[in-house]
Amino acid sequence: MIFHDPPVLPRGFQCASRNCGLKPEAPDLSLFVSDVEAAAAAIFTRNHFPGAPILLGRETIRAGRLRAIVANSKCSNVATGQAGLDHARRMAGAAAAEIGTTADRVLVSSTGVIGVPLPIDKIERGLRGMSAELQDDPRSGALGIMTTDRVPKVLSSTAGLATLTWVAKGAGMIQPNMATMLAYIFTDARFEAATLDRMLRQAARSSFDMLSIDTDTSTSDTCALLANGRAGNVPEALFQEALDAGCTRLCEMLARDGEGATKLLRAIVRGAASDNDARQIARSIINSPLVKTMAYGADPNVGRILMAIGKCLDCTVRPEATDAWINQRQVVHNGIRSAFDEDALRRELRGDTVDIEVDLRLGNGQATAFGCDLTSGYIEENAAYYSS
Amino acid sequence: MIFHDPPVLPRGFQCASRNCGLKPEAPDLSLFVSDVEAAAAAIFTRNHFPGAPILLGRETIRAGRLRAIVANSKCSNVATGQAGLDHARRMAGAAAAEIGTTADRVLVSSTGVIGVPLPIDKIERGLRGMSAELQDDPRSGALGIMTTDRVPKVLSSTAGLATLTWVAKGAGMIQPNMATMLAYIFTDARFEAATLDRMLRQAARSSFDMLSIDTDTSTSDTCALLANGRAGNVPEALFQEALDAGCTRLCEMLARDGEGATKLLRAIVRGAASDNDARQIARSIINSPLVKTMAYGADPNVGRILMAIGKCLDCTVRPEATDAWINQRQVVHNGIRSAFDEDALRRELRGDTVDIEVDLRLGNGQATAFGCDLTSGYIEENAAYYSS
Repeated sequence: MIFHDPPVLPRGFQCASRNCGLKPEAPDLSLFVSDVEAAAAAIFTRNHFPGAPILLGRETIRAGRLRAIVANSKCSNVATGQAGLDHARRMAGAAAAEIGTTADRVLVSSTGVIGVPLPIDKIERGLRGMSAELQDDPRSGALGIMTTDRVPKVLSSTAGLATLTWVAKGAGMIQPNMATMLAYIFTDARFEAATLDRMLRQAARSSFDMLSIDTDTSTSDTCALLANGRAGNVPEALFQEALDAGCTRLCEMLARDGEGATKLLRAIVRGAASDNDARQIARSIINSPLVKTMAYGADPNVGRILMAIGKCLDCTVRPEATDAWINQRQVVHNGIRSAFDEDALRRELRGDTVDIEVDLRLGNGQATAFGCDLTSGYIEENAAYYSS
Repeated sequence: MIFHDPPVLPRGFQCASRNCGLKPEAPDLSLFVSDVEAAAAAIFTRNHFPGAPILLGRETIRAGRLRAIVANSKCSNVATGQAGLDHARRMAGAAAAEIGTTADRVLVSSTGVIGVPLPIDKIERGLRGMSAELQDDPRSGALGIMTTDRVPKVLSSTAGLATLTWVAKGAGMIQPNMATMLAYIFTDARFEAATLDRMLRQAARSSFDMLSIDTDTSTSDTCALLANGRAGNVPEALFQEALDAGCTRLCEMLARDGEGATKLLRAIVRGAASDNDARQIARSIINSPLVKTMAYGADPNVGRILMAIGKCLDCTVRPEATDAWINQRQVVHNGIRSAFDEDALRRELRGDTVDIEVDLRLGNGQATAFGCDLTSGYIEENAAYYSS
């Protein structure tokens, strides 16, 4: 799959971001607009304490039609009760008034600290006049939703005559469950909302569902797919392929930019008794603090990979049939540590991508999980997130 | 429950530790001996890649009789194949020869790096003459099994006329599953092996099973209970109470000394729909990297507690009925962040024990989990464990 450089928005989509006073100076408010109503699907966090924007979003997405997405950073509007829900509705209303539609065609997202009231007055004031600033560069919209992200996350590619564009944020509290922190996908292809929903869920299964930065599932995860039809019909299989590829690439970008992370960690498991076993074991490897610190320190302590496989108590594992590789170098054969060149392995571990491959030699189950290393940067960032 | 200070061994038990050359200078080999055959029970890791000592131990414990435990640190003899198993048998044989029994009455443990061959010659040489050094202070035996532990873990208390003594190690790769890293419990009470096994499993359910330092389940977890009968019969209920209390206290000691930890974290969940729900939610709280870093940084970011409860997707949770406290200060009421004194809470979080209490107001399920904060010390320790 070829991705545009720089990324672009599909026909008929524009965006803008502004500082409305939630952060000292950086953009903290983003608006994404389609000039016609787009068919839309969305998946949200399954956390039991969904934020007010999630509760409202579940209601809004039922119609399968969206004109805009409005999102703020710094405050997630979670654990804020009825007042929080009122604020989310006001935010949708203010964005709708600004672009000339109704509140039920606007998806709202908020991301940031949990449990503090949303400064809705600042957001309403911030939205006024923002439509005049709408433009074609998707990076503009990505800036306003960043929290601890070091880089804005934007991708675009094509499927037939259609363009697909991904805009996302997220660096911590990332182990999405049927969604990611905030990921918006825009396309000018034409599909019905139900088809978008099916395709989005399929793409999420091998991408967002297999991403974990820190095992913590956010209360704000939202992934929305908007299709405004400007490029006409595109074969579904072609579109699905482009959608899967972009979602996977996006997850790698999110993992690589995980809080404090210095590298991307991928666990590629094959030969499992089932896909579900492979998924669980791949997740266990990229989530293990001991595997993550091994990658960070470039320490060839490869026995930890066996530990992380072996703690998946519900999965079928035959120790004597288990093989493992790090960046193509075999480190385990038949469940026993291989005699490998330690210095060469140290060099591999020092790189910016560490691929841990496992063959369980049991069946055809396979899966890939995306994560990152665990560093002091993660600790520093999260020991004072609220206070800073 | 009153614990002895300093701790003592029960009648008829002695121990010793030595340096046999696995570490540069510190003790790396421990021997625990009962002067008569003791009834014994043990529980081991459920990790799919058990170390050679675990495979041998499962065989040995079937008879329900032990005279001794021999344990080394620095090398765990895991992922070492048939050679590893031969080494474990030689280690049992060498200890048996030294104290005048047979190899099938000796439990073997090894702890340390996974996947490197056990230096069995050094261990055999080290054991020679060690019986002459056996003595009554349990701390001596605790020294030889330390790896990243900062302090030796020893406890003793009484049940009727009997003494119970716990000797343990473990600071990382700790989320035991029906066992802990290495925990030996000695008593002079008289019980049959089957009774010991039942009592040990019951104690583990509310202690070792609820302990997690880093979510990683070791390949070497072993918990053994030896009863030599020297103090005669003790009522089972009285003994169970003492056993439960000591195992719980030991878990608090292990958590507090977790790799890099600066404090003990306890999650006390009540009002859950079931005990299993309470156990899962309590574990989720103490395992959340974001709750752990919040505790480390004394950052009153209490919304993360709701996130950690809410990500237990299989548990019943009613957000509007959820209350939470930190060290008795209410921080969540009806699922909404309370207006609390932030400075006072910061002071509580700076202490050496942080109790997070949750009432789900759904039923009678309850559980307590034991963990610790996550600090840069954990990262530093584990980024170079193999190489250092």
